[in-house]
Amino acid sequence: MHFETPSINQLIDLWLHEDIGKGDLTSIAINEKIVSANVIAKQKGVFCGGPLIRKIFQRLSELVQINFLIDEGEHFESGKVLLEINGPATALLAGERIALNLAMHLSGIATATAKLLLELEGTGVSLVDTRKTTPGLRLLEKYAVRCGGGINHRMGLDDAAMLKENHIAWGNGIGESIKVLRKSIPWTSKIIVEAETAEQAEQAVTEGADGVLLDEMPKEMLGTLIPKLRGLAAGNPNRKSRQIFIEISGINPSQIKDYAATGVDLISSSAPITQSTWLDFSMRFNNEKTN
Amino acid sequence: MHFETPSINQLIDLWLHEDIGKGDLTSIAINEKIVSANVIAKQKGVFCGGPLIRKIFQRLSELVQINFLIDEGEHFESGKVLLEINGPATALLAGERIALNLAMHLSGIATATAKLLLELEGTGVSLVDTRKTTPGLRLLEKYAVRCGGGINHRMGLDDAAMLKENHIAWGNGIGESIKVLRKSIPWTSKIIVEAETAEQAEQAVTEGADGVLLDEMPKEMLGTLIPKLRGLAAGNPNRKSRQIFIEISGINPSQIKDYAATGVDLISSSAPITQSTWLDFSMRFNNEKTN
Amino acid sequence: MHFETPSINQLIDLWLHEDIGKGDLTSIAINEKIVSANVIAKQKGVFCGGPLIRKIFQRLSELVQINFLIDEGEHFESGKVLLEINGPATALLAGERIALNLAMHLSGIATATAKLLLELEGTGVSLVDTRKTTPGLRLLEKYAVRCGGGINHRMGLDDAAMLKENHIAWGNGIGESIKVLRKSIPWTSKIIVEAETAEQAEQAVTEGADGVLLDEMPKEMLGTLIPKLRGLAAGNPNRKSRQIFIEISGINPSQIKDYAATGVDLISSSAPITQSTWLDFSMRFNNEKTN
Amino acid sequence: MHFETPSINQLIDLWLHEDIGKGDLTSIAINEKIVSANVIAKQKGVFCGGPLIRKIFQRLSELVQINFLIDEGEHFESGKVLLEINGPATALLAGERIALNLAMHLSGIATATAKLLLELEGTGVSLVDTRKTTPGLRLLEKYAVRCGGGINHRMGLDDAAMLKENHIAWGNGIGESIKVLRKSIPWTSKIIVEAETAEQAEQAVTEGADGVLLDEMPKEMLGTLIPKLRGLAAGNPNRKSRQIFIEISGINPSQIKDYAATGVDLISSSAPITQSTWLDFSMRFNNEKTN
Amino acid sequence: MHFETPSINQLIDLWLHEDIGKGDLTSIAINEKIVSANVIAKQKGVFCGGPLIRKIFQRLSELVQINFLIDEGEHFESGKVLLEINGPATALLAGERIALNLAMHLSGIATATAKLLLELEGTGVSLVDTRKTTPGLRLLEKYAVRCGGGINHRMGLDDAAMLKENHIAWGNGIGESIKVLRKSIPWTSKIIVEAETAEQAEQAVTEGADGVLLDEMPKEMLGTLIPKLRGLAAGNPNRKSRQIFIEISGINPSQIKDYAATGVDLISSSAPITQSTWLDFSMRFNNEKTN
Amino acid sequence: MHFETPSINQLIDLWLHEDIGKGDLTSIAINEKIVSANVIAKQKGVFCGGPLIRKIFQRLSELVQINFLIDEGEHFESGKVLLEINGPATALLAGERIALNLAMHLSGIATATAKLLLELEGTGVSLVDTRKTTPGLRLLEKYAVRCGGGINHRMGLDDAAMLKENHIAWGNGIGESIKVLRKSIPWTSKIIVEAETAEQAEQAVTEGADGVLLDEMPKEMLGTLIPKLRGLAAGNPNRKSRQIFIEISGINPSQIKDYAATGVDLISSSAPITQSTWLDFSMRFNNEKTN
Repeated sequence: MHFETPSINQLIDLWLHEDIGKGDLTSIAINEKIVSANVIAKQKGVFCGGPLIRKIFQRLSELVQINFLIDEGEHFESGKVLLEINGPATALLAGERIALNLAMHLSGIATATAKLLLELEGTGVSLVDTRKTTPGLRLLEKYAVRCGGGINHRMGLDDAAMLKENHIAWGNGIGESIKVLRKSIPWTSKIIVEAETAEQAEQAVTEGADGVLLDEMPKEMLGTLIPKLRGLAAGNPNRKSRQIFIEISGINPSQIKDYAATGVDLISSSAPITQSTWLDFSMRFNNEKTN
Repeated sequence: MHFETPSINQLIDLWLHEDIGKGDLTSIAINEKIVSANVIAKQKGVFCGGPLIRKIFQRLSELVQINFLIDEGEHFESGKVLLEINGPATALLAGERIALNLAMHLSGIATATAKLLLELEGTGVSLVDTRKTTPGLRLLEKYAVRCGGGINHRMGLDDAAMLKENHIAWGNGIGESIKVLRKSIPWTSKIIVEAETAEQAEQAVTEGADGVLLDEMPKEMLGTLIPKLRGLAAGNPNRKSRQIFIEISGINPSQIKDYAATGVDLISSSAPITQSTWLDFSMRFNNEKTN
Repeated sequence: MHFETPSINQLIDLWLHEDIGKGDLTSIAINEKIVSANVIAKQKGVFCGGPLIRKIFQRLSELVQINFLIDEGEHFESGKVLLEINGPATALLAGERIALNLAMHLSGIATATAKLLLELEGTGVSLVDTRKTTPGLRLLEKYAVRCGGGINHRMGLDDAAMLKENHIAWGNGIGESIKVLRKSIPWTSKIIVEAETAEQAEQAVTEGADGVLLDEMPKEMLGTLIPKLRGLAAGNPNRKSRQIFIEISGINPSQIKDYAATGVDLISSSAPITQSTWLDFSMRFNNEKTN
Repeated sequence: MHFETPSINQLIDLWLHEDIGKGDLTSIAINEKIVSANVIAKQKGVFCGGPLIRKIFQRLSELVQINFLIDEGEHFESGKVLLEINGPATALLAGERIALNLAMHLSGIATATAKLLLELEGTGVSLVDTRKTTPGLRLLEKYAVRCGGGINHRMGLDDAAMLKENHIAWGNGIGESIKVLRKSIPWTSKIIVEAETAEQAEQAVTEGADGVLLDEMPKEMLGTLIPKLRGLAAGNPNRKSRQIFIEISGINPSQIKDYAATGVDLISSSAPITQSTWLDFSMRFNNEKTN
Repeated sequence: MHFETPSINQLIDLWLHEDIGKGDLTSIAINEKIVSANVIAKQKGVFCGGPLIRKIFQRLSELVQINFLIDEGEHFESGKVLLEINGPATALLAGERIALNLAMHLSGIATATAKLLLELEGTGVSLVDTRKTTPGLRLLEKYAVRCGGGINHRMGLDDAAMLKENHIAWGNGIGESIKVLRKSIPWTSKIIVEAETAEQAEQAVTEGADGVLLDEMPKEMLGTLIPKLRGLAAGNPNRKSRQIFIEISGINPSQIKDYAATGVDLISSSAPITQSTWLDFSMRFNNEKTN
Repeated sequence: MHFETPSINQLIDLWLHEDIGKGDLTSIAINEKIVSANVIAKQKGVFCGGPLIRKIFQRLSELVQINFLIDEGEHFESGKVLLEINGPATALLAGERIALNLAMHLSGIATATAKLLLELEGTGVSLVDTRKTTPGLRLLEKYAVRCGGGINHRMGLDDAAMLKENHIAWGNGIGESIKVLRKSIPWTSKIIVEAETAEQAEQAVTEGADGVLLDEMPKEMLGTLIPKLRGLAAGNPNRKSRQIFIEISGINPSQIKDYAATGVDLISSSAPITQSTWLDFSMRFNNEKTN
């Protein structure tokens, strides 16, 4: 899983510090022992966050052992036992809230993504996310979108260039801007132009943009514009990938199916992250020593 | 505002690094200049996050100036201009997404809190949050709850002790656990007992707990139990604060009004944080130089 | 032990970096081998710091093994072998100074606390610490006070509110300040008022403070004031905890016994931390290979 | 300049700490005053590092003022005064070595890049760098390559996928690997295949790779292969960018001109970074007070 | 002052975080305004810590202004007004405890050092500190020793080599160890040998050690040994510095004067740091607005 | 090896983050398995960096095992297998570039140092480095100089004082400056004077400097000056170390042999670090499972 980056441990320490701070006061009242518990889903959905649950608990104690009964991205029903865990009581109590908070949040996103994707089934159109993510959780929320079946858009301002209205206005127009960027950014980085009019879109394709984002355009207009853009980019039957990526945004989720029929490659939506709510998981302890 | 802690700047750097990473590629295409913009609400709600918006932009450039047209915790209608901002174009473009993401998320929480509080109007019962918060944003999400009119529960495991079922089972019962804690935790920290039965609740009060949390108890049972607990704790007309804090949790939001009538002090709910969605704000640039 | 927080490892790295910096120059002159040593007390006292000694050495090498011959908070005589240690020579030499410095300092505090507590034996009054702690060691020095038998006051500005003279002067008086705080701070956080006069103390109790701190008041005055405050707070025979916490401060250690007789709950003193000196421990190596 | 990222200040602190550590001992011997100096080139070359020189000195004192007499990427002769600086003597002495070390290193890279680019003049072929960069200086060394006129390859393992021999062997072949990646990586990230044979290169283009890297292939072979790959990718006269990026690597710098004639888009070389040496700059103080 | 290193700000953030944590709860009760205060000494002593007081408050608010009425290292009487401060009420309240804690601790060390130095007046012998310092405060406590008139020994394991009994036993004897170190450590680093016998001391000088530390040797023995060592090292009337540094340790403070007469260069003592207690300073607010 | 400091792991995390960032995209295409590889030298030279290679890979996975076939500082021929490694494919691919980059850079420095030392063979003169090191790699590049047979000069501004022209001009002359420093810096720190004239050099020795650096002086002048300085410092046949360290700098490497004959102790040169280039190492995978 390529979200396993060197900075994940720093995030986990931040989360642990946030909850445990100067120490778990209540843990003083218990006698340390090895205990076991299950995590159970109280709603159906799509699971996401298992590797992080493992990392959080093992950061607290190397003695914690977890057995997952579900895979990342797998659908589950209410009542499903998601995992079995055992380890020192203080570690399980200290990590419970953080681990569940994260998995409940990420599974909520994965579930919302999967639901939206039902609308796109069979269309060949991909659902992509946006940079509207909770500060501090970009990498993980985008991972949750992938767990739900979506595709990630750029991860940040540094791995693709996207010329928006203001860049164009404050720079020197679409053509000149693309030229400047090609000389300055890594050749491996794509250039996308967010177009507000058909003319801008056509100019972007003609000037060599890798992708064009058509924002809040009416469905009818897209019906004409997209084939025109494809023509300008000139298809090549020998290559599987299309030569210009056409993305639309600003679509109401209820109309997503209709818009998919316009021939776009990608529909971007922030809804799986900004409009989803947490799933409900619960940790149930088995109140006897296991050791 | 007491969320202005020494670690806020570290969080902001984390958020900026997350989005900007190795550098904003697209900014190369623009000619640096001073520009201005408004942030506009596209939905009605309760505002939260202004001081953070300011800090985020000023971390990017000391030249950024912001004029807020709304206070923290203030209700606004759709279309409201929330703030006017001006500063270097690169700073505004780089900070826009992070600042709005945060404010849209926090305002969503404040709005959900305020809505739930309507149910408690005139009851004298307080709405409190829980430790179900997005990892990395505990302090800020709890601040948003306050902006919406709620009261915070403990901030973490370190500023109050809460004996739950497992602490009691793995320790030596309620009385002994309270005794151990009183000797070990700061005298300024309260001890709360989460009770699953009336007997546990009564024992908690008798043994000197500062608060008792009645989880998922039927309304009828509360009607009998709460006066009994109050009696055990013995009210004192000379003091304004009640002598035992009685909190209930596990209430369906739709029944919150009915439960408030049982005489509890506090109703805790994770819903304003876990079940809320983002409000929609938009930054509109004025496309002419202001300098 | 609830000082085992996520930030302890960061502190240990800071301490190690402070002493080892760019590397232990002298270690180049030795041939690495497994060696063993004892740590011996050269004075009697109360031991504190064992878990930190272990963490410091194990941060330097996972091969270090330590066998403690004394418990935290245990009294020992001069000459006592406190622990046996073995591990790589370079790790033992690099960690020796840091580990001993910490334990000698903390044991000095635990010992001073225990000595002061002799004055309170049988009185039922608790000795509490203050926020006068060495910068960077708050958590550990307060842990040492607990090892010596004391109780901690609030750990920082964030886990209880304490209205002092200036807060009252710059706010809107005691009653209004308490009201504002109750609406703003977590319900789990106590509110204490530092009173300089009997009137302030009475007002604090009447307005619902959780505790009142009587600073530098004459013993005779306390004899009258304390029962009055208890009366205002109205005792309740069914609850073990008293309803108002009364704390006194500014007491000369030599008079502590007399003041305890006034019926206070708590006497706070910074002396165990600010007026104590280090105990003397020594590490004695067994100069033969053990491996 | 898009290397101005949130982490630059952390790097500067690391560099300052490395040199200044526990404090500049010698500074005790001077009387603090405002002094001025010039930085002079003792060799000709291409300048790089000005913004970092400014940041390093201003991190030490806000009173430092620098006037640059040269632009980033500008050619200069030996003897050129690169900048004038004035500020507190202790700040100039403490920052001198770090600032010059960095600029001399980066200018060495920019100069070596510019020299290699002379071989490509008029060919339309771009020179790109590699991931062979000094640990800790990736962003800055790649910035120096841009200052010298080169183009950056991917900045790290996270902003483009490159299938090498081992990925192909340990995965499921070129076609399947591209398919897996398209579903998993951001749609904005390019996929490049490093081909060791003509067959692999053709397969990569046919399967939809965005770029193909031909490693250590003989010039004659490239003469045939490149047009074939272009044909497979199907040129489109309406678009300025070519449809498949063809890169070659493993070229001896002395043959770079000949290889450029094969019709490739990009020639990658680590030499400007790994085989360059530092330029020589000197800071000359004006030994009188300026304030 | 050469303790102004890049890592001081990190320490200050650590201290602030330790006290302020999730936010100063009580500050909510006050109305922000500019206030002023004095810091007054309640005991006589030697002052140390002014620059740190300034840095701590200015880290909290750039509006804080401080006027020191005393210099670092200056003696003062009880009642002395050490400084005048004004700034935002919340900043003064939040920084008060941390700033005073530090200055009270450091001034205690400076005072103890100055007192011990009275014993050495007129002897030409220097008092030096040791590596027995409070973890996290090495740099600052050693600075306090300088404020009191002492000289620092090595700052850590990395800026001088000191061969102790175990290094010699686990290496290959004094001569060989010095030879190994000379080849491995910076030529600017001194080599010191801790000698337990006269023979070891003589060998250390003969083999070229820069300094010799005579630990716990009787005064009479030193009377003979020191001239012998000086002879071996051969004095040179043209140079002011002596050719071998002779240090003694393990001296009871009460005998320090007698030992100074033996002709040593340096007497090392950990007592100013490990056996000193805090001075008492108090911040007195002027309870009216100054703005 | 005394470069094994507490901050090495932080550096390694910085390097890993720099390359891996948000995750290794390409690793998604492979099936995780245990693989093995060799690292082979493609040029002859002196090896340096083995312990760091080990640390880098083991930071990525505890399962990585490395068998070195060469020692630090050992000469090798082209084609030499430097090490055998096996471990998880993703760890080997992720660490390959960083580990090799570092070792190729450090081995380049060690090799250049060793080559320059050939000029000094049999002269008894030591080659020392300078503070001209790549920002962020001071400790490691100086370690590479030691691997090549050189001696380190001071590691930073904090472990020896060096009075240069400007310190002398802005202070109060050589004699006074040395006096001030002796009172302020640790007694274990040496004082060196950089002399531009014979008079300055003589004054430095007379006033008690530990070393004198003669910068860019003609060979003939040194022939007279050095014996004069030695005379001033007065040699002592009983001690092996000379009483004044005489260092020369600014020597063209081609003349180093001639200058060594002047009787200096040390010749300093930045060339092994600033004028060396990387050696070429290659990792060759064995493309079959080993597990």
